[in-house]
Amino acid sequence: MPNRKFWNTSITRVEPNSIRVRGYDVTELMGKRSFGDVVYLLFSGELPKSNEGKLVEAILVAGCDHSLAAPSADTVRFVASSGVPLQASVAAGIIALGDSHGGAIEQCARIFQEAQPQTKDVAALANDILAAFRARKERIPGFGHPQHTADPRTARLLGLARGWGLTGPHTELALAIEAAMERQLGRRLPLNVDGAIAGVMSDMGLDWRLGKGFYVISRASGLIAHYYEQVTQERPFKEVLWQEIEYWGPAPRPVPDQQS
Amino acid sequence: MPNRKFWNTSITRVEPNSIRVRGYDVTELMGKRSFGDVVYLLFSGELPKSNEGKLVEAILVAGCDHSLAAPSADTVRFVASSGVPLQASVAAGIIALGDSHGGAIEQCARIFQEAQPQTKDVAALANDILAAFRARKERIPGFGHPQHTADPRTARLLGLARGWGLTGPHTELALAIEAAMERQLGRRLPLNVDGAIAGVMSDMGLDWRLGKGFYVISRASGLIAHYYEQVTQERPFKEVLWQEIEYWGPAPRPVPDQQS
Amino acid sequence: MPNRKFWNTSITRVEPNSIRVRGYDVTELMGKRSFGDVVYLLFSGELPKSNEGKLVEAILVAGCDHSLAAPSADTVRFVASSGVPLQASVAAGIIALGDSHGGAIEQCARIFQEAQPQTKDVAALANDILAAFRARKERIPGFGHPQHTADPRTARLLGLARGWGLTGPHTELALAIEAAMERQLGRRLPLNVDGAIAGVMSDMGLDWRLGKGFYVISRASGLIAHYYEQVTQERPFKEVLWQEIEYWGPAPRPVPDQQS
Amino acid sequence: MPNRKFWNTSITRVEPNSIRVRGYDVTELMGKRSFGDVVYLLFSGELPKSNEGKLVEAILVAGCDHSLAAPSADTVRFVASSGVPLQASVAAGIIALGDSHGGAIEQCARIFQEAQPQTKDVAALANDILAAFRARKERIPGFGHPQHTADPRTARLLGLARGWGLTGPHTELALAIEAAMERQLGRRLPLNVDGAIAGVMSDMGLDWRLGKGFYVISRASGLIAHYYEQVTQERPFKEVLWQEIEYWGPAPRPVPDQQS
Repeated sequence: MPNRKFWNTSITRVEPNSIRVRGYDVTELMGKRSFGDVVYLLFSGELPKSNEGKLVEAILVAGCDHSLAAPSADTVRFVASSGVPLQASVAAGIIALGDSHGGAIEQCARIFQEAQPQTKDVAALANDILAAFRARKERIPGFGHPQHTADPRTARLLGLARGWGLTGPHTELALAIEAAMERQLGRRLPLNVDGAIAGVMSDMGLDWRLGKGFYVISRASGLIAHYYEQVTQERPFKEVLWQEIEYWGPAPRPVPDQQS
Repeated sequence: MPNRKFWNTSITRVEPNSIRVRGYDVTELMGKRSFGDVVYLLFSGELPKSNEGKLVEAILVAGCDHSLAAPSADTVRFVASSGVPLQASVAAGIIALGDSHGGAIEQCARIFQEAQPQTKDVAALANDILAAFRARKERIPGFGHPQHTADPRTARLLGLARGWGLTGPHTELALAIEAAMERQLGRRLPLNVDGAIAGVMSDMGLDWRLGKGFYVISRASGLIAHYYEQVTQERPFKEVLWQEIEYWGPAPRPVPDQQS
Repeated sequence: MPNRKFWNTSITRVEPNSIRVRGYDVTELMGKRSFGDVVYLLFSGELPKSNEGKLVEAILVAGCDHSLAAPSADTVRFVASSGVPLQASVAAGIIALGDSHGGAIEQCARIFQEAQPQTKDVAALANDILAAFRARKERIPGFGHPQHTADPRTARLLGLARGWGLTGPHTELALAIEAAMERQLGRRLPLNVDGAIAGVMSDMGLDWRLGKGFYVISRASGLIAHYYEQVTQERPFKEVLWQEIEYWGPAPRPVPDQQS
Repeated sequence: MPNRKFWNTSITRVEPNSIRVRGYDVTELMGKRSFGDVVYLLFSGELPKSNEGKLVEAILVAGCDHSLAAPSADTVRFVASSGVPLQASVAAGIIALGDSHGGAIEQCARIFQEAQPQTKDVAALANDILAAFRARKERIPGFGHPQHTADPRTARLLGLARGWGLTGPHTELALAIEAAMERQLGRRLPLNVDGAIAGVMSDMGLDWRLGKGFYVISRASGLIAHYYEQVTQERPFKEVLWQEIEYWGPAPRPVPDQQS
């Protein structure tokens, strides 16, 4: 990578009346290629060789909204109600896509990729990974869901990926960990949608550092709908009444004079 | 709309092992419908009747990136270089999609929709709108571009929309304003991609308040690529050297003692 | 202002081992001047001539927190619970300080400053301003409060400002509008803390465009306390249960096949 | 902590016409106590016993601005130029206060606090900490500065803290690490302002998790000045010209047809 200027990029070249993304004229991409293909192009540098764009589209659909049960949507409701433009309200919701709200994609994909299941016995690898987590008394990310005993998006996503020939050793590893957990813990903690995305994105050759990226794009669509619903259907200034707040701090007290 | 609880929504119902967006099971949408269809569903409440989902996909592709020539991308570079997670870095870039950076979609769609071109003479309407802006000495949003004499995305987007039978009176109004401007000002200030999106989204029946929404989803994809490039290809802490900064404030001076 | 370089500023000159804010060595400001003095310096370009720094400190104290009754604090709670670093969680809360959550300082200070009460009859001006708002059927910002019939911070702030010799025609105008409202509407809608800050900041010579600035600095302190309380005292992932959400959208329906 | 309601807090109780922060009436705090005292109250739960509020004020002054040499200020410039309200522009800059831009306060205070220097030999402890970092080939945070060979704020802050009787074992540990580094590495890598704040905040009994909090409040003041300067003194839409961007990605290429 040359680094002669302050501003360097390999993503897009803009010239007067020309915009080329990774070398492709954006006007040629429009209409000819799906947004899923272009997301794959932006994330990996190349257009899909087979059905990767379809799978990206399915991932984007999978994560589009989870109602007000998601903290990011509640965030958007409070911010939008305070008189803030769409993009800034939605950005506040996107900030909320943190380590424990979608962050499992990144964490889980990292585990899968660093394990390098391409060249190893996947069942043994799954046992080792699980044992390491149990030794540290940590929960492995990407399994279980607070509101679903079996995340309905997982089976569908893996089914589509399989049908499109896009599952491989990383997805196998995800399922092997699920099986190992059931054997070792005696109960099923099923792979959730984050873990499933982590598996298939790894098999599509995408870096785990991009894991949250799918979620940011996908959930942005739902958060925009929450912004719009808030400003068109609800009262301005979403307000928790003081009576609803349990205060458990110090009782009233006088302000002491400053000493020194 | 009932409003019996603190948390109300018409977007998605979440129940254990079930997620229904606008009544549709998300697992049925996955694979069967494009992300463009689902964005249209989230924005309008209904799935497309014809090619609207394809046009939404083309809009999302059109706006995906504009290199470091866009302030939002520069924003992401500085934030990502400071050791900030992906979603928060990208959110900072999304905040930058303000009134003068993509905001023309919303502003322009509002003008088009409030003009109600469905029932009026479009050429006369265009003259009136332009005259009103000129009287206030304001520039009409959605025309001209700082870096392109003719925004290459405009013709392509309108061509696709026309081919899919999705242009109507709002798009006609956009083009009529362009023509009126050329007549009245003696020079061509062509419709840019923001103005073109404003026209076709209005003809697809989408509220102008959602205008920036397309741009947020679309450009998120490019901003993620900029985040990734920054953290994998560039030095940490993107830093303007003090020698590069022109300081034009007061000369060195001693701090006076407080009076009172 | 010279504009020879891409990066221009009159705020601070950084050189190796030297940081000068508006010409003052920051190490000389430290300990010798209050943070209120320095905020005034940053906002106006000059250190206070009299008690302005004390008044800025009182403003910062006044707005420091309003419990979970403020949407910005609720925002921080949801974001912090999702596994997001302090600065990004607090930034999400700051985004919520929009037009209807602290925005009245800016709006109100603009009204006061554009009215130019220095050279006019303040009572007549108050009547004119109020009449203009009533003619447009708009509420004048800075008066009334959703949770306080009389905002307790107003009287205290104005009392301090008066004692420090810092009230003038803008504050008088604020009070004259309050009186005019009582006369014209037959009920008291008292000046709230936003309106009081708008008055005294205008009398201190600060541009209305900086109005929200006081609130951003001040409330940041409370939002940090909310972040800290969330991560140390509450369960991770602040979650609205699906049973608590009233869904009022379409009933379950099958996904139709795509037409075209 | 009781947890009977969804909304729980020990920070502030709001009732009609009453706001009590940690039990203190906010109107009594106003004028009687500095903002530094109130920040300490919000962070620790109690008002300062001695000079802690003065030291907090000095910390807030120390970090108020670092010109356009700080990525957060550059962030605000780009966002503000795009037509974004003050609070959202400044919030974007605050997001940039990440692990490598002010984050050293938190990281460094954590090291100091977990080392528990109150009960140990500080010089030995310093050697151990440094050895552990060197063994992991990591740089210890809080020492050195990209633009200052000796951060001028450090000596001043420690001098003030010492004069106010507020230095203790954590600050001693910071200085012992500096000395150990000089001995072990043969060159001086002086404690920077982040490391100095980490030391004194630890000696004031504040949790390392609050480390970035000082910086958020402090730098907010400078970022507001940058917002204001951008919108009043500079051209809208801060724009990197395409000629200034070094593109190093793929050469122009045609979009291939989709295979499957």
